[in-house]
Amino acid sequence: QGILERLDGGEIVIGDGGFVFALEKRGYVKAGPWTPEATVEHPEAVRQLHREFLRAGSNVLQTFTFYASEDKLENRGNYVAEKITCQKVNEAACDIAREVADEGDALVAGGVSQTPSYLSCKDKTQVKAVFRKQLEVFMKKNVDFLIAEYFEHVEEAVWAVEVLKESGKPVAATMCIGPEGDMHGVSPGQCAVQLVKAGASIVGVNCHFDPETSLETVKLMKEGLQAAKLKAHLMSQPLAFHTPDCGKQGFIDLPEFPFGLEPRIVTRWDIQKYARKAYDLGVRFIGGCCGFEPYHIRAIAEELAPERGFLPEASEKHGSWGDNLSMHTKPWVRARARKEYWENLKPASGRPYCPSMSKPDGWGVTKGARELMQQKEATTEQQLRELFQKQKI
Amino acid sequence: QGILERLDGGEIVIGDGGFVFALEKRGYVKAGPWTPEATVEHPEAVRQLHREFLRAGSNVLQTFTFYASEDKLENRGNYVAEKITCQKVNEAACDIAREVADEGDALVAGGVSQTPSYLSCKDKTQVKAVFRKQLEVFMKKNVDFLIAEYFEHVEEAVWAVEVLKESGKPVAATMCIGPEGDMHGVSPGQCAVQLVKAGASIVGVNCHFDPETSLETVKLMKEGLQAAKLKAHLMSQPLAFHTPDCGKQGFIDLPEFPFGLEPRIVTRWDIQKYARKAYDLGVRFIGGCCGFEPYHIRAIAEELAPERGFLPEASEKHGSWGDNLSMHTKPWVRARARKEYWENLKPASGRPYCPSMSKPDGWGVTKGARELMQQKEATTEQQLRELFQKQKI
Amino acid sequence: QGILERLDGGEIVIGDGGFVFALEKRGYVKAGPWTPEATVEHPEAVRQLHREFLRAGSNVLQTFTFYASEDKLENRGNYVAEKITCQKVNEAACDIAREVADEGDALVAGGVSQTPSYLSCKDKTQVKAVFRKQLEVFMKKNVDFLIAEYFEHVEEAVWAVEVLKESGKPVAATMCIGPEGDMHGVSPGQCAVQLVKAGASIVGVNCHFDPETSLETVKLMKEGLQAAKLKAHLMSQPLAFHTPDCGKQGFIDLPEFPFGLEPRIVTRWDIQKYARKAYDLGVRFIGGCCGFEPYHIRAIAEELAPERGFLPEASEKHGSWGDNLSMHTKPWVRARARKEYWENLKPASGRPYCPSMSKPDGWGVTKGARELMQQKEATTEQQLRELFQKQKI
Amino acid sequence: QGILERLDGGEIVIGDGGFVFALEKRGYVKAGPWTPEATVEHPEAVRQLHREFLRAGSNVLQTFTFYASEDKLENRGNYVAEKITCQKVNEAACDIAREVADEGDALVAGGVSQTPSYLSCKDKTQVKAVFRKQLEVFMKKNVDFLIAEYFEHVEEAVWAVEVLKESGKPVAATMCIGPEGDMHGVSPGQCAVQLVKAGASIVGVNCHFDPETSLETVKLMKEGLQAAKLKAHLMSQPLAFHTPDCGKQGFIDLPEFPFGLEPRIVTRWDIQKYARKAYDLGVRFIGGCCGFEPYHIRAIAEELAPERGFLPEASEKHGSWGDNLSMHTKPWVRARARKEYWENLKPASGRPYCPSMSKPDGWGVTKGARELMQQKEATTEQQLRELFQKQKI
Repeated sequence: QGILERLDGGEIVIGDGGFVFALEKRGYVKAGPWTPEATVEHPEAVRQLHREFLRAGSNVLQTFTFYASEDKLENRGNYVAEKITCQKVNEAACDIAREVADEGDALVAGGVSQTPSYLSCKDKTQVKAVFRKQLEVFMKKNVDFLIAEYFEHVEEAVWAVEVLKESGKPVAATMCIGPEGDMHGVSPGQCAVQLVKAGASIVGVNCHFDPETSLETVKLMKEGLQAAKLKAHLMSQPLAFHTPDCGKQGFIDLPEFPFGLEPRIVTRWDIQKYARKAYDLGVRFIGGCCGFEPYHIRAIAEELAPERGFLPEASEKHGSWGDNLSMHTKPWVRARARKEYWENLKPASGRPYCPSMSKPDGWGVTKGARELMQQKEATTEQQLRELFQKQKI
Repeated sequence: QGILERLDGGEIVIGDGGFVFALEKRGYVKAGPWTPEATVEHPEAVRQLHREFLRAGSNVLQTFTFYASEDKLENRGNYVAEKITCQKVNEAACDIAREVADEGDALVAGGVSQTPSYLSCKDKTQVKAVFRKQLEVFMKKNVDFLIAEYFEHVEEAVWAVEVLKESGKPVAATMCIGPEGDMHGVSPGQCAVQLVKAGASIVGVNCHFDPETSLETVKLMKEGLQAAKLKAHLMSQPLAFHTPDCGKQGFIDLPEFPFGLEPRIVTRWDIQKYARKAYDLGVRFIGGCCGFEPYHIRAIAEELAPERGFLPEASEKHGSWGDNLSMHTKPWVRARARKEYWENLKPASGRPYCPSMSKPDGWGVTKGARELMQQKEATTEQQLRELFQKQKI
Repeated sequence: QGILERLDGGEIVIGDGGFVFALEKRGYVKAGPWTPEATVEHPEAVRQLHREFLRAGSNVLQTFTFYASEDKLENRGNYVAEKITCQKVNEAACDIAREVADEGDALVAGGVSQTPSYLSCKDKTQVKAVFRKQLEVFMKKNVDFLIAEYFEHVEEAVWAVEVLKESGKPVAATMCIGPEGDMHGVSPGQCAVQLVKAGASIVGVNCHFDPETSLETVKLMKEGLQAAKLKAHLMSQPLAFHTPDCGKQGFIDLPEFPFGLEPRIVTRWDIQKYARKAYDLGVRFIGGCCGFEPYHIRAIAEELAPERGFLPEASEKHGSWGDNLSMHTKPWVRARARKEYWENLKPASGRPYCPSMSKPDGWGVTKGARELMQQKEATTEQQLRELFQKQKI
Repeated sequence: QGILERLDGGEIVIGDGGFVFALEKRGYVKAGPWTPEATVEHPEAVRQLHREFLRAGSNVLQTFTFYASEDKLENRGNYVAEKITCQKVNEAACDIAREVADEGDALVAGGVSQTPSYLSCKDKTQVKAVFRKQLEVFMKKNVDFLIAEYFEHVEEAVWAVEVLKESGKPVAATMCIGPEGDMHGVSPGQCAVQLVKAGASIVGVNCHFDPETSLETVKLMKEGLQAAKLKAHLMSQPLAFHTPDCGKQGFIDLPEFPFGLEPRIVTRWDIQKYARKAYDLGVRFIGGCCGFEPYHIRAIAEELAPERGFLPEASEKHGSWGDNLSMHTKPWVRARARKEYWENLKPASGRPYCPSMSKPDGWGVTKGARELMQQKEATTEQQLRELFQKQKI
């Protein structure tokens, strides 16, 4: 069954987690470029991570093609060997995902994400050409459906959806935005409307914000669609980091990004709350992005096991709500083998010299920049960025 | 070159990280039992983790035989299928470790750890028989050297060392204790002395405490050896969790153990400090235990690259002190591409409703228990545990 | 010069601080009732506190008549001796304030606050009679102007202003609300408009929220007045407690209220930021409420000394920005004698087992209660309170 | 009854709180110099604070003669008008204390504290002359007993006790040290022994450390006396600030000293725990130092009311354990009217950008300085200070 048959039939579809962060920690992706040349260089590492997500309950394996557009890979040329062409990276990503998906009951989704071409103000035709090049591989490898994800500007996301729709396959689209909307000031509701009108059957958010904030954004998208009398399935793939303190541009502006985020990592119990809340909001494609490890995906599958009627394979190594602790020799550890304990725990950081919140860096929160935006003298990120560079806002 | 040739020659030997915690998150180990049947059930997952540590710089691959003694596996019988015998688990662990070690310049170390037999008061002969059974496999598979690790009682650790010494191979021994000493009240200095006298060429600590606390304990061991005019190499494999708040028994008593430890995870920069401090203390076998992921091991290798003269393979995907951020489009992210930034960062938890420290559970901190200990009415953990169960201390 | 002459002439008028909290700590006011019988019982204590505020820079001494309406004092009858009548409390308050005001250049303001009569749904005539009784004393004692403060419902505040205006004296009116508006859901902008239309020459907020939140509310009031083309002077007298985490009803719902608020007490430097921000917003009557001690008022006067051209008397015992530390024997303490140090200090709590934020208690944040409010089944606090008591929302 | 009759008879004697900090906040003392010229300049403010402590339960009123030695006042000459001589300050302090003490059942204690003469290495005769000058005033004014307090070096404290003993009156002596001992490295136990041998009938600690740490120090003093078979009454007057993070020299080295200590202020409930713990340790002269406000002293009196059989006067304005909240209109505030609530509350700071602990400044924690001390190259603070200034340790 395809993605739309599943969602239309009322199934809960579980996505996978974040490849670039997980593989950075494993030693196969470089932070900064964040490009997926590992599909060619170390296919066994990519394959293993796919397997772990499948085993944890993922129904969708996304090809590891994040930032695998030709312009991005060239941009990062110093990191990627000459022989690792854009085509090879994308083909290998499709092959690995398919191989693992066939070991279970999962779909393969080909994914595209925002491009340097757009950010450097190339025109629609040029940007679309970049997406089309990746799409050709996805068609050749016959992925099951397509995802346009990690877009900060709805304009570019719409172009991506339009290209992906040329394939005839179902298209999902997620933006890496928060409740304040995209970088041009388009509200989440409006973003959703434009994406659905462009052809997306599934819309939502991914990355940049924590689960709680991301669901607020999805809620605004849902309301926007309702107001416009449009229908679409909802999807969320947030960070697995707590980021209540980030500004409009999300976790990149936090001082801890990307090498000091550890204290923000969410627990499996945080994820169970997220999964329940997402379900209650009507989201049926529920997954994760940066920071999501296999055990976080398993937590989604375990929380929604009553609705779905089954547990994922990896639950053979996990008791519900810590019940595997019930045989511990210490009575006070046995006392942790229950839902109330983990639901109510306020976990300590072990870091008494650290605060609980940070001020984001950058013009995202600069008074001068905000006022400029309000005065409409600069309405786009691009313009603000230029102003920043000129005026040291 | 064997382990002693390397250490005697002044080399820094880098250990590997924590298998049970890493594989629990990946879906292959069950928290609570913490047994390594994955070597038989999912060898590809174990192999991949070994590879990642090798790539990150590990010079020693420990066989994944933690809690793989026959009495432990039987104890956890409900979790392990009948056909997965103790022998099979240990053999598979050796084969996988050797396979990966041969891909690089690494040694294979066969490992034993504390046994239920000891805790249930079996006698010396019986406990030694348990270790000997594992040793037979290690001899058959011809590991390079042996490690007795994760012992809370020096008495049992000494028995383990005595058995392992029968092999004629070099033996390392680490205890999971803090500065307060073992569960019978033997000081770290005395523990070290007894272990060396029993035949260990390398002594130190692993697990249960954070890097800083663990190095305090190793320092006490070093001083104990000096006072006794004994010589041995020093070794440390601590947690990758901040645990300034734990009591005598370490992180198990913290309320966050084992499913809410995320905010305590150390950063790569914390590990660089640890590696430098360990080196300055004279420790030359430097690795990690629970919580250590491949990128933490890489951080050891990067910190000590000046002394060693080379970087690990995985550093091709990592810039020193964040220098891979120097090409970021945002100027405030570029500003993070330097050592001072990451060294001085006090990372926020993103959890304003959580504290920074916890009170450990259990009799470890119970007034009644402490007084009992002081009164010498109960001098062993075993006796206190019984009292606890009887009297609800 | 009267209050309006001063404000119309562009002067900055500095208010005083919080009497009930300061005198509770000194032993003269009972938390819970919070009534001011100390004016009769211990006039020397009240006089001394007035003197300290005067010395710290206050231009206005408010009569200590908070909760001194007849219905409130009767309500708290068990606490107040029979002979301490409402009239005596109010008269003594006026006498003490006048005595101290005459020692300097300060005005005396007679104050009324919200009444039990209103909360128990007495009608307009009855509630106004309560205010009128206090006003009679204020007229007899010839205070300089009048303040209606600490109102949660603009309806009652308007009634108070209407009564006070009968005197012909200038009237200021402040509500204890946050940006979400009054307990009936009237926005801050609308509250301000209604108060000015009722005759208030000065409007703003007092109590219940921290300086930052209070200024947000005043900003909304200012915008409401501008939109309605009304003119009035702005006033703010916030808490001296950090309360970023409180809900619509302010600090009373925080678990720390009223006996565990210590870690939230603001520093003098926080107050200097507040004073500057208030000034920049156009507020010209700047004071404080609960938690404000004399040194906090002095901090307002010191921050605005450049604009005002003089320092308060108490600054003879205080160096600007810590410069009194410049002669300390320890060089690292001397290093604290500068503005940058104190401005940027993030003061630690010394409480590693405590969090930085709390969840407010009560229906103020209860999902059920919020939904009821949204559904307009219950639009007033009174109705919600009844529902709460019936249904245990 | 005199102080010794009371203590010998088994009474609990309650001290008073911290004058310099309380009066700094009220505008009468300058931080930095911390001298008590307010006794002459603003006697009404000093008198009022004495009254508040008396009302809160103090049985001893200390003359406000802290840092009132002639050498100190001269040292701070720029702050003190020429006419305010040392003699006048001390005489006024005695008169005010006696006036208020006579309003109740309190004793007056004349106090001396450490001198600049000692710190600048004047000899024993010279330093003793400084104390003798203050003692002359105390004798003329006939105080009830004498306290030598706030000494960092036991040598100077012993000289002070010797001088005070010349009067024939009972002498108490407290040092501002922590468990690590005095600045010359003399242990708390040894300090106590020397003070008792010099003639002190009561010994203990005051200032510099929080209640918990101070009681640890008193415990060491008690053990020292027991070992030496000496008898003395125990006394503690700690800070009302949480300072778990300070080094050997106490809170002065904390970055928050003295103008950012607010988040560290202890609650009344913290004080009740302290009072109980002090009592259990055998301390019978229980008071406070910097940060102690009248309500903190009342908390001591309330905690120990069962043992003493009565409540202080100020308890007429305070319900035990918050029971004055039992009539509040909001049910969730009523729920706070009980001991368990306040005992277990972990109060939030409202400061999510602040940490819970700080690193102390200064050589107190400098590695170089510590090593110097260990090497005995520099054994005194004076020597270290010189080294610091020369070498920028």
